[in-house]
Order: sequence, then C-alpha cells, then structure tokens
Amino acid sequence: MSIVVKKWRELAEVKAELAARDWFFATSGNLSIKVTEDPLTFLVTASGKDKRKQTEEDFLLVDAFGKPIEDTNLKPSAETLLHVEIYNRTNAGCCLHVHTIDNNIISELYGDKGEVAFSGQEIIKAFGLWEEDAPVRIPIIPNYAHIPALAKEFAKHVNGDAGAVLIRNHGITVWGRDAFEAKKFLEAWEFLFSWHVKCLLLKQAAVLPVD
Amino acid sequence: MSIVVKKWRELAEVKAELAARDWFFATSGNLSIKVTEDPLTFLVTASGKDKRKQTEEDFLLVDAFGKPIEDTNLKPSAETLLHVEIYNRTNAGCCLHVHTIDNNIISELYGDKGEVAFSGQEIIKAFGLWEEDAPVRIPIIPNYAHIPALAKEFAKHVNGDAGAVLIRNHGITVWGRDAFEAKKFLEAWEFLFSWHVKCLLLKQAAVLPVD
Amino acid sequence: MSIVVKKWRELAEVKAELAARDWFFATSGNLSIKVTEDPLTFLVTASGKDKRKQTEEDFLLVDAFGKPIEDTNLKPSAETLLHVEIYNRTNAGCCLHVHTIDNNIISELYGDKGEVAFSGQEIIKAFGLWEEDAPVRIPIIPNYAHIPALAKEFAKHVNGDAGAVLIRNHGITVWGRDAFEAKKFLEAWEFLFSWHVKCLLLKQAAVLPVD
Amino acid sequence: MSIVVKKWRELAEVKAELAARDWFFATSGNLSIKVTEDPLTFLVTASGKDKRKQTEEDFLLVDAFGKPIEDTNLKPSAETLLHVEIYNRTNAGCCLHVHTIDNNIISELYGDKGEVAFSGQEIIKAFGLWEEDAPVRIPIIPNYAHIPALAKEFAKHVNGDAGAVLIRNHGITVWGRDAFEAKKFLEAWEFLFSWHVKCLLLKQAAVLPVD
Repeated sequence: MSIVVKKWRELAEVKAELAARDWFFATSGNLSIKVTEDPLTFLVTASGKDKRKQTEEDFLLVDAFGKPIEDTNLKPSAETLLHVEIYNRTNAGCCLHVHTIDNNIISELYGDKGEVAFSGQEIIKAFGLWEEDAPVRIPIIPNYAHIPALAKEFAKHVNGDAGAVLIRNHGITVWGRDAFEAKKFLEAWEFLFSWHVKCLLLKQAAVLPVD
Repeated sequence: MSIVVKKWRELAEVKAELAARDWFFATSGNLSIKVTEDPLTFLVTASGKDKRKQTEEDFLLVDAFGKPIEDTNLKPSAETLLHVEIYNRTNAGCCLHVHTIDNNIISELYGDKGEVAFSGQEIIKAFGLWEEDAPVRIPIIPNYAHIPALAKEFAKHVNGDAGAVLIRNHGITVWGRDAFEAKKFLEAWEFLFSWHVKCLLLKQAAVLPVD
Repeated sequence: MSIVVKKWRELAEVKAELAARDWFFATSGNLSIKVTEDPLTFLVTASGKDKRKQTEEDFLLVDAFGKPIEDTNLKPSAETLLHVEIYNRTNAGCCLHVHTIDNNIISELYGDKGEVAFSGQEIIKAFGLWEEDAPVRIPIIPNYAHIPALAKEFAKHVNGDAGAVLIRNHGITVWGRDAFEAKKFLEAWEFLFSWHVKCLLLKQAAVLPVD
Repeated sequence: MSIVVKKWRELAEVKAELAARDWFFATSGNLSIKVTEDPLTFLVTASGKDKRKQTEEDFLLVDAFGKPIEDTNLKPSAETLLHVEIYNRTNAGCCLHVHTIDNNIISELYGDKGEVAFSGQEIIKAFGLWEEDAPVRIPIIPNYAHIPALAKEFAKHVNGDAGAVLIRNHGITVWGRDAFEAKKFLEAWEFLFSWHVKCLLLKQAAVLPVD
C-alpha cells in the first residue's frame, strides 16, 4: 500500500473518532499527518469541509511550506502554517487542532497568565510522567487573526517531538510522534480541562457541609 | 436524478446529523430546503413526526404560501410560515429550526434586551468574519403562539441570504444559501450559546484563586 | 404479523432509542405496551436485564394482574404493578419509566411540595397545549420501597389516557395512548427538567452584568 | 467454544459498551475477566492500547501473579496487581476500572474522609439492597504511584465477591461475580456520583425561591 494511502487512512480514522465526539463544530478544527521526511510532505485537512463526513476531498498533500504538491482546487486549512512550524522544527508525525467549549474556557481563564499547569491527576501519566504529583503545563498564546503572526508566536512553544499549545478563545493544537500519541495527548488535555472546569464550578458548593 | 429527490436527500442528511445530537426532543424542530426558484417550491418537514427516524413521510413539497403542492394527508410543520418569509424575502436555500436547552436559556437571559452579541471567539470566523474581535449579534423575538403574528415579527429580521433569529423560550431559526451553510451557522451559534452559558456559570468561581 | 410480534417490535424500538440516550443505567427502568384489550394483556420488560442489549428475553406477556401468561422463567419488572394501574384505569397503550440525573434532582427539589409546574416554554406544545403560557404540572410521590404501597399512591394520579408521575429520588413514569405519544411526552418532560435545572444553576450568575 | 474465547468475547463486549460512553480517555482504564479457577488465570487488557478500538491484541492471559502465560510481546496493564488481589481474595469473576470526570471529583471531595456514603436513592437497589433508605459506602484510598503500595492499600478493602474502591484523583475499580454484575455496579456508582455532583452544584441555587 502506498505510504500516502496508509497515512490518509490513519488520519481519516482519527478524524472520525474526534468527529464522533463532535469536536469539529461549524467546520472548525484541522488535522495533519506527515507522509515523507525528505523532502517533507504531509497530508492536511482541506479548508471549510464538514469534518463529520468522510470524502475523497478531506485531505490534500502539501510541502514544507504548506503549499499543495498536486494540482487541486482544494485549499489547505487556513492554519496550515502552524502545522508547518511543527514538522520543520521537530520529529512529530501528526498534529491535531480542535475547538471545544472547555478548552476555550480554560484558555480565557488563564490567558493573562500565559499558561496553565496541572498536577496530582492520574491521567497525567498519559504524558509518560510516572512520578507522584508530576506537573504538566500548557502555554496559552493570543489569538492573532493574522496567521503568519499566530504561527510565529506559536513556533516559540514548539520545542519537542510532542507538545501542545492553547490558543486563547480558539482551541488546542497538539502534536506527537505519531497519530496514536497525538490523539492520546489530546484526550489527556481535554480530560484535564473538563475536570478542572467542573472543579471550579464546585469550589463554592464544596465548602458547604456534605451529607 | 430529479431535483426533488436530490434535495430530499440533502435535507434528510442534515436531519439525521441534527437528530444524532438529539436536537429534536419531543418531535420539536422543523427544517426546509428550496427546490425550485420560479415558481418557488420547497420541501418542509411534516408536522408531528419523530425526527430521529427516517421515513418516506418526513417531508412534503409546498408552494410559496406554504401549501402542499401534491395530494397528501401530511400537514406541513406548524411553523412553515416562517420558512415562507425566508424564501420569499431572500435567496436562502435552506432553513433549520431547533430547540436546545442552551438556546432556550440564552433567549430568556437576553430576551428583554431583544438581542445578544458575541465577540472575541474564533468560532465567529465560521460566519465569514475574519477580523480580530469581529462581533456577531442575533435578534431575540417574543414567542407569539399565533403563528402569523410570530411570522410577521420574525420577518422584520429576515434581511439577508443567511441569518438567524432566536425565539424566546422556543429555539433558533437559521438560514443559509444552502444546507451546508445553514448547518455551519447553526453549529456556530450553538457553540457560542453553550460556551457563553458555561462562562456565566463560572463567573463567580473564576474570581477565586486558582491552584 | 401477529399482534404480539408487532407490539414487541414497537416496544423494542422505543427501548433502543432510550438506551441510546443511556437512560437505563444499572438495569434501571421498565417499559410496557398493551397487546390486547379484553382480556387485558401487555408486554413488560423482564426484571434485571441490561436494556442496552436486544434479546429474545427482553419482554414477557402478562395479564391484568401483571402475572405471566405463558410458562417462563422470566420475572416481570418489580414495578409491573404500576403498569397494571395504568392499563386498568385508562385507555393508555404504552408506559415508560426511566431514571435520569435531572428527573431525580427535580423530584427532590420539589418533593415536599408534591408537584412541580412549568409554563412559558414552547416544548409544552408537545403535550397538545397550544395557548400562550399554558402551564403543565407533574405530581411527585414518595418512593415507597413496598411496591403495592407505591402502586396505591401512584394510582391516585392515574386519571387520563396520557399522563406522568415523578417518584422521588427514583424516576419518571409516563404513559400515552400509544408508544409514540408516551415517548414524545417523556422527551418533553426530560427537556423541561434539564432546562429548569440549568436555569436554577444560572440564577445567581444571571444577575451579574453581562458583557 | 473454548472458555478463553467465550470470556474474551464477554470482556470485549463490556469494553465496547464502556468505550461508547467515552470512559477510556487517553488509553486510561483497565478490565479483566477470570477464565479458570484452579490454576487461576484471567484475561486482562494489554497496556497502552486505545480501548475504543477492537483488536486481537486487546487482552492477554495472565496467571495468579499477573504474569503472561503465553509468549507475547504485550504487557499486561500497569495496574494488573489490583486485579490479582481481587481474584486471589474473592470469588469475583470480573473487574472494571475507569476514569471519569465525576468519579475523580467525588474522590477528591471526600478523599480526606476516606469514604463517601449515599442513601435514599432508588438506584441503590441495583446493589441488591431493597430496604428504604439503605445506605451504600465506597472507600477512597490514596493514589500511590508505586503500584505494589497501591495494591496493598487496595487489598484492605477487597472483602467480598462484589465491591468497589475509589482511588483519589484516579478512578473507580469495581468487581462482581461476573461481567454483568461488575458492569451493573459500575453504572450504579457512576449514576450516584454524577447525581451527587449536580446536587452539590445546585445547593445554593435551590435555596432561592423557585417560580
């Protein structure tokens, strides 16, 4: 099987799983997977598609600058430049970006601090951190409408083969060595966000005596 | 393929997607899609059906007055007059109306102000607004039980080929140039509503120091 | 097709839909559908089954006293006596009982008052009430562990061919002329409960100035 | 059919049901089912797999010490020692461990007390307790990162053929005489947790006059 076909299927499978959670409201979100190393090519979601559907126009192959390699009337996702930064700076193999209510809320609550950190949660072991109370942190960057400016800010936080960045009032971008790892890390972050939002909601009630 | 069959399938697909989100509680909601321009005809949901099911009686073809064109014992949705206003006043191709908990809550919270506005949220780009902090607003109208009165009030806000109106303690009506656009805009509004409701719930907790 | 087979399929379809919403946690809930009028027989869920699965032992046929008609090692649901009250006192054709978080919460919040009422909500039209601000009310009864005592208390509120009763910290029982109506009314009540619970959560936040 | 194949299918079915609820975020959770009594063998989830997928590498057969019986490159779940304690100390036939937002929150809210108790809830009958206001309690233990230490603490609470333990900021472990019972008890606990968390959120709002 051609490597492009293999990678297409891998990305399609991740897309279907995230769509099942309804993480692509209003055609939001974008995904990519690396296909070849040298020269760098990757498959990225076409712009403006309904990601709950599975079609032959879901992805297109682009080069190290995020430009389509083949003749096509499809446009790469508007935020392809962020994916470009990841593949050029690291050995990541896959990158996932989704908007959820809870990642938007966390990004605004901690946006002024520029990051949010968590510890003391078992799910943190998903990041490969096995010590008790190991902390994890995720940077939060401003949501510049100008994509090259956003990509430049984003690039400052692209330091490893796996990682994540929250864009304020926008969503999370997660990358990993392969699709499996990127998805696992994405799920761990979303679990932490939802857990933390619910904890904050309970802060007052919890001080009341419980029966 | 006949244009009616084509449009039927398009609308059925949207219905199935919204039903998967459980947006048709208690047979609520209604949908339509334009079939021909001149004379105007459109398919609209039959009244009182369980919209989680897919049957041959889901839709019926009506004219510019919302009257059935063919001999049928089906009745058009009770609110077909609102769809009539849209197709007569604009070039819209599809109209979706759903009841959700969050759109009901927003409609009541801001009902006295007659509208609600949002800005600074990435999902707003789904409306084709790409500037930073671009605002969006949606009018909120009273829920007159008399449908012609409701349609008259509704019509005041039908000014473009795409748009949306909240009916107080009732639901949202969204229209777009085609089914794809109408669904995209509907999802963007519902994301904004759910996000805003959760933000309001967090307003108090958020002022507490976070760990 | 035998009337028993026809009714079995109808009830199985409703069961599958409610199971899809996860309304049968921990084998809770019970359902029934009338098969014959004279003598009265109805299909009722067998006790203790996992209602997310579809099997040939899901239902059994019982008489006007809730006793199995055929030789079987299945036991009718422990609460079959409540279904008996409905079919003996009304022309109802179907009865649905489910536990949800929100119906439990409403039942406790308003349990001391013995009922809860709603008005000014569009979804109320699902009950066939079309006037503006038409109110609906549902009685709330104590959750006697002794089923004959519970059935006796329950029977006081079984006055029409369609209706509903909340059992405190237990769940809702809804009946209707047929499975379609019972399910529609159940969905309308659950929408009202979830909407009201969320409104209560927002009461404080809503008095804050909104942006 | 071989007993291993039969038990594999049983466990796979439970896994699919829990995955449908999205209870295995970020490859979390682990499951097991007893295969033979003497010598003791059981199937346990392989470490680090995506439990939303169904593959031939989902489970592996281990002995009374949690060591693989057959030649394999699969590793048993990191927490297999907890399953070992259950099968060695009781006649349990199945053990389920999942992370959910609500079980994490309950475990933290009541962690210092070392347990949480519930009563007056109909769903408690799922535990086979039929008296009115029968109480249920679940112990909460610290989340030691060192698994043998965790297993030792856990073992103190493994006193019956069915039971459950909450691990603080980690998840719930439930066991039962068979897969059916283990799943039923798991669902009952999760219902109680979600109900209680929502009750706490409502504590303040509920004292306000309701309309």
